Amino acid sequence: MDSLQFRDAADKAIDEIATYYDTLAERPVLPSVAPGYLRPLIPSSTPENGEPWDQIQADIERVIMPGLTHWQHPKFMAFFPCNSSFPAMLGDMYSGAFNAAAFNWICSPAITELETVVMDWVAKLIALPDVYLSEGEGGGIIQGTASEVVLTALVAARERFIRRRLADMPEGEEKMDKAADMRGKLVALGSEHAHSSTQKAAMIAGTRFRTVPAPREAGFSVTAAALRKTIQDIRAKGLEPFYFTATLGSTATCAVDDLVGIALLTKEYPDVWIHVDAAYAGSALVCPEYQHLCPPLAAFDSFNFNLHKWLLVNFDCSAFFIKKRKDLIDTYSITPSYLRNDYTESGLVTDYRDWQIPLGRRFRSLKVWFVLRTYGVNGLRAFIRNHVHLGEYFHDLIKSRNDIFSVVTKPAFGLVTFQIHPTSSIAAAGMDPAFASNAEAQHREDLNLATKQVYEKINSKGEFFLTSSVVCGVYLIRVVSASLSAEEKYLNMVFEALVEAAEEGRV
Amino acid sequence: MDSLQFRDAADKAIDEIATYYDTLAERPVLPSVAPGYLRPLIPSSTPENGEPWDQIQADIERVIMPGLTHWQHPKFMAFFPCNSSFPAMLGDMYSGAFNAAAFNWICSPAITELETVVMDWVAKLIALPDVYLSEGEGGGIIQGTASEVVLTALVAARERFIRRRLADMPEGEEKMDKAADMRGKLVALGSEHAHSSTQKAAMIAGTRFRTVPAPREAGFSVTAAALRKTIQDIRAKGLEPFYFTATLGSTATCAVDDLVGIALLTKEYPDVWIHVDAAYAGSALVCPEYQHLCPPLAAFDSFNFNLHKWLLVNFDCSAFFIKKRKDLIDTYSITPSYLRNDYTESGLVTDYRDWQIPLGRRFRSLKVWFVLRTYGVNGLRAFIRNHVHLGEYFHDLIKSRNDIFSVVTKPAFGLVTFQIHPTSSIAAAGMDPAFASNAEAQHREDLNLATKQVYEKINSKGEFFLTSSVVCGVYLIRVVSASLSAEEKYLNMVFEALVEAAEEGRV
Repeated sequence: MDSLQFRDAADKAIDEIATYYDTLAERPVLPSVAPGYLRPLIPSSTPENGEPWDQIQADIERVIMPGLTHWQHPKFMAFFPCNSSFPAMLGDMYSGAFNAAAFNWICSPAITELETVVMDWVAKLIALPDVYLSEGEGGGIIQGTASEVVLTALVAARERFIRRRLADMPEGEEKMDKAADMRGKLVALGSEHAHSSTQKAAMIAGTRFRTVPAPREAGFSVTAAALRKTIQDIRAKGLEPFYFTATLGSTATCAVDDLVGIALLTKEYPDVWIHVDAAYAGSALVCPEYQHLCPPLAAFDSFNFNLHKWLLVNFDCSAFFIKKRKDLIDTYSITPSYLRNDYTESGLVTDYRDWQIPLGRRFRSLKVWFVLRTYGVNGLRAFIRNHVHLGEYFHDLIKSRNDIFSVVTKPAFGLVTFQIHPTSSIAAAGMDPAFASNAEAQHREDLNLATKQVYEKINSKGEFFLTSSVVCGVYLIRVVSASLSAEEKYLNMVFEALVEAAEEGRV
Repeated sequence: MDSLQFRDAADKAIDEIATYYDTLAERPVLPSVAPGYLRPLIPSSTPENGEPWDQIQADIERVIMPGLTHWQHPKFMAFFPCNSSFPAMLGDMYSGAFNAAAFNWICSPAITELETVVMDWVAKLIALPDVYLSEGEGGGIIQGTASEVVLTALVAARERFIRRRLADMPEGEEKMDKAADMRGKLVALGSEHAHSSTQKAAMIAGTRFRTVPAPREAGFSVTAAALRKTIQDIRAKGLEPFYFTATLGSTATCAVDDLVGIALLTKEYPDVWIHVDAAYAGSALVCPEYQHLCPPLAAFDSFNFNLHKWLLVNFDCSAFFIKKRKDLIDTYSITPSYLRNDYTESGLVTDYRDWQIPLGRRFRSLKVWFVLRTYGVNGLRAFIRNHVHLGEYFHDLIKSRNDIFSVVTKPAFGLVTFQIHPTSSIAAAGMDPAFASNAEAQHREDLNLATKQVYEKINSKGEFFLTSSVVCGVYLIRVVSASLSAEEKYLNMVFEALVEAAEEGRV
């Protein structure tokens, strides 16, 4: 395909993409294909000779479209959003054109330098404490996903812990043996509602993992007291907590751990690395009304949020901020001869390969830069506030039918969670205590079952896509409507569908 | 930006991208900017209000272009190539449009299923043994980079080793303690010329790392005897080798380890996971003349190569093939309630999140599918053969001036490595042995110094971009010309520049 053919093919692709967005709401949000649908639709191996673009493009509608779940659809209210935007797509087009495995500065200075400056823009936009700016000892890097960020932080935490404890030992076999012994005693911590990425990262790093309780009474948040108790209990067993993922917006309910209290704890446990995972909710920090959450972050070691979730930057784009970049470089820097160059050795440039797990990296800051400039601070705030409003709007709808719905968590960053009242339930009041306790347990089970039934009914129809979750034994439905095309009318529709599904069970 | 504005903006972006490729050879391959060039060119924070596209686009030429290293440039002969192609860019455009964090099947069935089928296409295209096809117990997955693949394989190897050794212990604290002790004794292995990714992966996994010797006499390849001896030496110290990265095309010289011999060793050491890293050279396996390398791969556990290096798929795209996918799933599967769904539980679908480190994933198979279809088997073979020919062509040039150049490794997958003879050197012949040995060492040092001087001269001029490396004490220059725009005439030019730089030192 030469550049003339590319111009023609790209014209057609852009037309198809723009039309896809213009007509998206008319498609069902979920596909109706069965597992294995695709294989029979295409040949079983690469064609001997090349095919023209028109033949390839036709397969988008024939082969791909029937199997897509449309994350940009206004009826997509599952998981968290994964927003796309046109300026982000333009950024990725240029990134593809300037294709490079930009692992160090000389591999393409613009790729490194734009990232450094744009991550400073992002830090200022969300009012991160100045310690996370590149001008001091910190800075930001774009990684793929929060999972990668958590692993990167956790391994750096493990090695920092060991470096500090063994600082006085000379290098050699004995120190390596000692370090290996220590690794086997280390425990990574996360809220019982933290994303599974912390558990997975601990497994990859070869450390143990324990959860910190965050019960319903505490709003599903980790308190400083709960974290302290967990640390003490673990130490009492001869093991060493070295890392904690604090959550700013948990996956199931958008709970926020007690950042103020935990910030004070860092003085007691200076060797425990605290990383704040704000994967979804971090985008709300562009609004001043959420920025009261930011000052305690200065006490922690690192922070991340995913611009690919709620800030209009196409997947993948997780912004990872570190207070002392030395903590990453000391762990990740390995420089074989073919990577040596004068610029790196001058110390004047950033080699982001030493801040991350992979070597190569894409030019992801372009799409961030384009989105920030296209929307501006005010445009991004308006975007977030609309979804926060939609969360409140939906919460009001749910509350208006408290005969059917029971709110579990109030709107938090646009997310509402709720249960469905069972058709009939035994009133627990006025019974003798033993029986009442049984009745309460039965009622909780009935609530869970009724909620599960309605949830499954909605998703199986495929008109809306919702997610359920179980927190502290509570089965709940999550609704979060935060795509670019979200509107009140779609929340009215899903509300009606929920009412209808719940009432079907009542006939 | 609405869809009409996007059509207009995308038209202009496509025009700029096509023009960039049409005029690329006229630009210098390396930028001339100094560290820190970019920050003064743009504001220090996000603008308050959005900017129009024309203003944003103008900054590509003003801000970005001066700081780019042009990897698609015909005078880029450094590292390994990182090829782009127009069909791959079209694939990424659609991938951006269908933006999703496709961590499991229901998140977008097309994203999972196209990947499974296209990875089968790739496996057949490069004649991988059938054990790596998805129809049996294996299959392929697209990951970002070889570094991620190596880490994924190494951690799975660590956990498989422990599962096997502790299979008879009941689950519980005691088993966890035992497993932690075992992890501290594990040693990952790689050729002394293996890419630094194995050492980095071992560090992340918290295991030890040792290199296997691969001296010049063995063509810089690991032999089965060297690997066996390393394993035995390590075991004699009470440590346990559990993983080895075999290299099919080492970074410095494109050496291939003794795959046939090592395949036989797997019977002796069935618990040592052998991963074959063919990051660059694996693309050559599309040509039947290289496929004699494939049969031994059936004896190993996993294999990867980067389509983003030499097979025209834009970065990032590393194809990772696994013989028993269970070996990955047993290690990586963690399923919290919000990720549960009927499809996953049916066992009928692939959830690639359980084959990798991150949770979310992009729709990368589209770009692979478009490239394979646009070029066809024959087009891809012609593409590779052209670069293999160019390597031989350049080797002939170098040999034609054996007064200046000394070939270190003959053309391998298009790569030639060589040294520069020093201006004057002491003839070692006819001297008494002690003096001769000193003289030889001096000559080696002179060779290294002369080579380094010429290398630095070439790169500092910025007309060509080459890489140097040091293998077994030999400082060498690497030339690999394998971009889409590579031609004999550019090899003539770099040859002349090398001759000139070498002769300057001779005046």
